Amino acid sequence: LDYQHVQVPFEITLWIMLASLAKIGFHLYNRLPSVVPESCLLIFVGLIMGGIIYGLNDRSPPVMDSDIFFLYLLPPIVLDAGYFMPSRPFFENIGTILLYAVVGTVWNVFGIGFSLYGICQVGAFRLQDVSLLHNLLFGSLIAAVDPVAVLAVFEEIHVNEKLHILVFGESLLNDAVTVVLYKLFRSFCEMPTIKSVDVFAGVGKFFVVGLGGVLVGLSFGFTAAFTTRFTKDIRVIEPLFVFLYSYLSYLTAEMFHLSGIVAIIACAMGMKRYVEANISLKSHTTVKYFMKMWSSVSDTLIFIFLGVSTIGENHEWNWPYICFTVIFCLVWRALGVLVLTFFVNRFHVNTITSKDQFIIAYGGLRGAICFSLVFLLPDFHRKKLFIAATTVVILFTVFVQGMTIRPLVDLLAVKRKRESAPTVGEQIHIRFLDHLLAGIEDISGHWGQYYWKDKLEYFNSKYLQKILLREYDQPKSSIVLLYEKLERKHAMELAQAGQLGHGPAHPSLLSDRTVITDQKLEDTQNPDVLDNMQEILARNLYRIRRTGPAYNRHTLPGETEPAEHAKEILILRHKNL
Amino acid sequence: LDYQHVQVPFEITLWIMLASLAKIGFHLYNRLPSVVPESCLLIFVGLIMGGIIYGLNDRSPPVMDSDIFFLYLLPPIVLDAGYFMPSRPFFENIGTILLYAVVGTVWNVFGIGFSLYGICQVGAFRLQDVSLLHNLLFGSLIAAVDPVAVLAVFEEIHVNEKLHILVFGESLLNDAVTVVLYKLFRSFCEMPTIKSVDVFAGVGKFFVVGLGGVLVGLSFGFTAAFTTRFTKDIRVIEPLFVFLYSYLSYLTAEMFHLSGIVAIIACAMGMKRYVEANISLKSHTTVKYFMKMWSSVSDTLIFIFLGVSTIGENHEWNWPYICFTVIFCLVWRALGVLVLTFFVNRFHVNTITSKDQFIIAYGGLRGAICFSLVFLLPDFHRKKLFIAATTVVILFTVFVQGMTIRPLVDLLAVKRKRESAPTVGEQIHIRFLDHLLAGIEDISGHWGQYYWKDKLEYFNSKYLQKILLREYDQPKSSIVLLYEKLERKHAMELAQAGQLGHGPAHPSLLSDRTVITDQKLEDTQNPDVLDNMQEILARNLYRIRRTGPAYNRHTLPGETEPAEHAKEILILRHKNL
Repeated sequence: LDYQHVQVPFEITLWIMLASLAKIGFHLYNRLPSVVPESCLLIFVGLIMGGIIYGLNDRSPPVMDSDIFFLYLLPPIVLDAGYFMPSRPFFENIGTILLYAVVGTVWNVFGIGFSLYGICQVGAFRLQDVSLLHNLLFGSLIAAVDPVAVLAVFEEIHVNEKLHILVFGESLLNDAVTVVLYKLFRSFCEMPTIKSVDVFAGVGKFFVVGLGGVLVGLSFGFTAAFTTRFTKDIRVIEPLFVFLYSYLSYLTAEMFHLSGIVAIIACAMGMKRYVEANISLKSHTTVKYFMKMWSSVSDTLIFIFLGVSTIGENHEWNWPYICFTVIFCLVWRALGVLVLTFFVNRFHVNTITSKDQFIIAYGGLRGAICFSLVFLLPDFHRKKLFIAATTVVILFTVFVQGMTIRPLVDLLAVKRKRESAPTVGEQIHIRFLDHLLAGIEDISGHWGQYYWKDKLEYFNSKYLQKILLREYDQPKSSIVLLYEKLERKHAMELAQAGQLGHGPAHPSLLSDRTVITDQKLEDTQNPDVLDNMQEILARNLYRIRRTGPAYNRHTLPGETEPAEHAKEILILRHKNL
Repeated sequence: LDYQHVQVPFEITLWIMLASLAKIGFHLYNRLPSVVPESCLLIFVGLIMGGIIYGLNDRSPPVMDSDIFFLYLLPPIVLDAGYFMPSRPFFENIGTILLYAVVGTVWNVFGIGFSLYGICQVGAFRLQDVSLLHNLLFGSLIAAVDPVAVLAVFEEIHVNEKLHILVFGESLLNDAVTVVLYKLFRSFCEMPTIKSVDVFAGVGKFFVVGLGGVLVGLSFGFTAAFTTRFTKDIRVIEPLFVFLYSYLSYLTAEMFHLSGIVAIIACAMGMKRYVEANISLKSHTTVKYFMKMWSSVSDTLIFIFLGVSTIGENHEWNWPYICFTVIFCLVWRALGVLVLTFFVNRFHVNTITSKDQFIIAYGGLRGAICFSLVFLLPDFHRKKLFIAATTVVILFTVFVQGMTIRPLVDLLAVKRKRESAPTVGEQIHIRFLDHLLAGIEDISGHWGQYYWKDKLEYFNSKYLQKILLREYDQPKSSIVLLYEKLERKHAMELAQAGQLGHGPAHPSLLSDRTVITDQKLEDTQNPDVLDNMQEILARNLYRIRRTGPAYNRHTLPGETEPAEHAKEILILRHKNL
């Protein structure tokens, strides 16, 4: 038996297997997942596993390695979140999300930090040796809402899109703030004296970390899109690039101490549109499926590890400190949401209702990020107290808040997500309103959301698409393809009958695919059916094609070449004769 | 900058990226891949990379770690090979394949080992210190044909299926022999004296290693199939199980010193049939796509690393030894193929032609497995000579044989793979002949291939399918589904009109999906089209369904329950009225 040799991959595979089997197990009994969130069940499995390991070895089970968490488990989840992020509600609410993520998190950090310092001054609790800086450091790691925990719970309760994006967007974007504050306080803890210049450097650093992450992410995203332009002959490795480039963006950002989460989200959102247009349909299915699978496994592993790591002797159970931490987390978040929403509502027409505010405050779940950060703390004599407090906060938020949020949503009758997709009419109206508002903003000289969106769209169609998209993008709808074939066939017949003179009737006839297409067509269609189809299609589709794909502020209907125009009219007239 | 922290994943990602970009690069220029096999190009890229690293650092570039190769790069390729193995030609030629793989490899090992020992006795070459055992050890690692190299070349030349499976099957199954002989000679090298009992133990060990691998693989394969029975509610992690179980089978086999390659192939071939039936179509696309992608990347990395590792100062260039190694590899393989094929042809009707024999002998490419094994050799003073000889043999076979085999196949007019799929008529005839031959073998008391195949099929349908397949297996063809819907709808109408008494007309009406199905049907079809369709379908499909899926020796046409039978006839008569 040679276990040493295969130990690493064997144990990794076994853990993933355990996670997958646990997931199957829950879903076998249908009622369970509808009452208890999966995250709770997984932590529970982890607790049992940890108990078994603890019982057998009589020592603490291994805790989740922070490196493994940040380098291997977190990226797939964030990538999945970024790739499937609904971009419209995200950008519509970006201001509010940033306010919650930046100001809200800072508010929570300082609120929790200072009030816990106050608690430490009470003699009876025996906590006088925990300094203000340590309390602020602890506040910086416990304040941040966790995207993994939020996603696990909010995916199951189906609240309306705006509410979902507000909580989820905040949990993703607060990473930049958390990174900066956590590292700042940690370095302050090790410094002998703190100068005021360090504090200002910290504030400046926030912008570097956040915007740097966006820049790194976008550059990798565009490179990924550019790379997929050239994969036409080797479709099988297309999905790889999506994963490789986004992972590289995360690692690069982490390497430069920027926010990896922000980078990977920017990368995923940046590349999605172009990659989807470039890669084949099967590749895209694989990308989507594998992303979901991977994030689902990562998610499962994180919660199981959370459970396992909870068992053991890493904790110092000073209950006053722990209880006050839970209370302050709840109170400061509630206050923060109330105050910030008050300001947000003053500047918006679509206000955030008080029910929504309650869910935003109540949905501030903590998770594995805090847990990993607390283990990364430098060793000092009260680290075990912080670990205990973090564990209790996580378990409290995931179990108590996670399990009660669904009944609360039902009870408050919070507006739910609409189940049906928007109708064509609605879509057209939304689009029309976008253009209208962009125009109004342009005339009134107000550079608002629609103005910038419109400018971005112009930049995209004028430059980005030309660089990042493949040149010959085939129309994907089969009805358009069929119409194209029929048109070509007819033009060929006309040309053969000599009615159109010497040149080919249609520019696309020059492409060498035509012959094959035609042969196929003749094999499969009989002339009666064909004529019939052609008539229907010509009546309906010709006009659509003539007027261009859709109204666009930056192209005029008359922009097609007049020569082509004239020729097509000629063909049409010949046909009618 | 914190490079240390992200180094491992960052460098892995960069290597994979390099490999993928290299692949894209070759395919951009269309003529290149049709002349030079991709494996040669990749080794060439590796050589350049190695040269750059060597030039910059002035020391040997890092060689491919044998652990990385055997634990991470080889399994995906073998899994892909096993999963997409055409099982019919494989099992039809299993005897010949095993003969080549076992006897042929032993023949090569001893042939090459003894003749190289003869060369070592020539005083002018200064090789007297290389013992017979060392030569045999070297023979055991250089004799084995490499599946990765064979696959890379044979996938591009499209020879006929039988020839392909003979070379490829041999390259896969000789792993068991290689493992045993390599480990045997290596332990002999370290033993002071060798007893004859050790030699017999070695022979016994071969059966343990090979059959043990098959057993481990099959048990994991069936467990995988069994697991996918329960993934109905959680489709997204289905593809995971295919990868996890097959990887576990490989690792478990390696752990017990069995043949990992044989295990993973047995696992993949064992589970394929059941897994495919259990998992969803999208999951299956993902499995196939990801397997291809993964093996393609592994393959690319292996050849690049081969190139990189070639550069450096690990070699002792004793040219006589190296040249004679190349010559003996060619000569002994050619002799082995000739002799073994002579015996094979005496017992078979479909003989292996002399052209095929030449391609089998010429297609015996060596690759990364030899390379990894030679680096795993215990340190002794002539290890660098063995490394040099192995490198030259690999480069010679991959470059010279790999590049000339395609022109030779053209020149000899070797029978090619048929491009078209077999027609329905052919398939029916093949099936009919199978049953006929199984019957003849049964009557004549000859327990041949068809007899066992038939017994296996019986065992499969009687026991395995019941355990491993999901109970409610839906027919997947849309025409069958449509017919089912129409039949149900009609039965419903009859039941509503009271023509069939109280009970529901068809057992399947009891399922709760019916109502939804019916509603959908009413939405989409208009009555005229529906009646028309129903008539056509009823005429054609009803009879097919009545007589069962196909003729089967183990089920009789009358085996459906008589009650159901009677009811269906009743429905049919009512309809005709």
